[in-house]
Amino acid sequence: MSLLQRLSFNQMTTDPWPIERVIRNCSTSGIPYIGVWRHKLDGDTAKVSAMIRREGLRVSSLCRGGWFSAPTAEERRKRVADNRLAIEKAASLGAPVLVIVSGPANGQTLDDARATVLDGLLEVLPDAEKAGVTLGIEPLHPMYAAERSVVVTLKQANDLADQAGVVVDVFHVWWDPEVMQQIERARGRIAGFHVSDWPVPLPGILMGRAMMGDGVIELRKLRRAVDATGYNGPIEVEIFNEEIWNTADDGLLDRIQQRFLSHV
Amino acid sequence: MSLLQRLSFNQMTTDPWPIERVIRNCSTSGIPYIGVWRHKLDGDTAKVSAMIRREGLRVSSLCRGGWFSAPTAEERRKRVADNRLAIEKAASLGAPVLVIVSGPANGQTLDDARATVLDGLLEVLPDAEKAGVTLGIEPLHPMYAAERSVVVTLKQANDLADQAGVVVDVFHVWWDPEVMQQIERARGRIAGFHVSDWPVPLPGILMGRAMMGDGVIELRKLRRAVDATGYNGPIEVEIFNEEIWNTADDGLLDRIQQRFLSHV
Repeated sequence: MSLLQRLSFNQMTTDPWPIERVIRNCSTSGIPYIGVWRHKLDGDTAKVSAMIRREGLRVSSLCRGGWFSAPTAEERRKRVADNRLAIEKAASLGAPVLVIVSGPANGQTLDDARATVLDGLLEVLPDAEKAGVTLGIEPLHPMYAAERSVVVTLKQANDLADQAGVVVDVFHVWWDPEVMQQIERARGRIAGFHVSDWPVPLPGILMGRAMMGDGVIELRKLRRAVDATGYNGPIEVEIFNEEIWNTADDGLLDRIQQRFLSHV
Repeated sequence: MSLLQRLSFNQMTTDPWPIERVIRNCSTSGIPYIGVWRHKLDGDTAKVSAMIRREGLRVSSLCRGGWFSAPTAEERRKRVADNRLAIEKAASLGAPVLVIVSGPANGQTLDDARATVLDGLLEVLPDAEKAGVTLGIEPLHPMYAAERSVVVTLKQANDLADQAGVVVDVFHVWWDPEVMQQIERARGRIAGFHVSDWPVPLPGILMGRAMMGDGVIELRKLRRAVDATGYNGPIEVEIFNEEIWNTADDGLLDRIQQRFLSHV
């Protein structure tokens, strides 16, 4: 199987595009998977889902659930309810995976926030199982610890809950001295693999990602390590890059396929 | 002993000030230690050293050596030679510690770069020992992995070389799920403790630090963990913050003392 048959295009790579254009471009380029974000669906899940099927695409994952680390009981209940909605949405889209971003400390200590994340996760895991959706815990880079995720290493994600999956995004984990052993440890639980690159210098914290090959991440080494665990599912290209947002044209997905083949 | 007697003012906190002003302000505020940077000394080490002594201050550390991860043998020799100069400079300033920042991968793989760091460190350790200077390995935050330091966790610093010390900077290590156990593991090897804070949102990668109390780092918890290992040496305030650079006045060091007492 050509690696290209595992390529998934995460729609946030072309944030300014309506989802219809993303779907059409994937179809035209022969990209088999699409990574979908909840806030892009509005109320049109059924319509989007039908269009994806009509174009012969599959959804690799829905982004995102989680954000469990709320500081009050009431807020936590709201988060759990919201995750149940997200699980339903993933199921109705045919997304096998709901990406879970844990959330920041929100005024709690790191220890308390991390315990809260586990509590929330355990509460919704049965719902996910019933819906046939894997919760894919995505550790974020430690530079997001204060604002987005108290789960910052693959080791933590692996430690969290045996019944959950993990999502390995190279941008978030490449720096970790333990990344190879933690990928091996995630054998059988890898629910997603995301690629982009880390440019030097990094232009910003949120919008710093680059096209594969335009940075320093050892992409092929990481991809091979993930494959060696037996994972042969979709590989999502998820690049947050303002220049790509501003200049994306209909040739972008072909260029992404080329970079994917030469660097991933 | 009051905690204030352990305060060291790292001169980069007021980068625009000439070192004479830093020394005078420390003396006026009764701050006992100063953290010195090599590029601020120019050729005037003896003069600066005499002024520091005359004002009754002590140097807590000299910043910095390291940057071992050069990609060619010739470059590596240059780095080793430069580290020997830095060790001499630390000794002549009376600085007990030379802060070591490992350097980025520089086109090498992370594994190769990390091995190179260890090689360089082992090569200069005997010189440091002879000069009575501790090499304090400072792990940097993973967001600097590509540009400054392939050593990104306290675990790595602890693993590197038994004969070397480690420098714990809260800004670099606070996010780490293993930070408490690695601080405990560093017992007897802690060569420095640096404080600042992590503001939300982080205004930038290089200049993102905040005054203690203006961010989310659990400062007191980390300070107590460091103290619990038996470390009772200087605690350096090292804040890279453009607003502080632009607005620093002669009251700044008093405000730092207050924040130090209330938050560290």
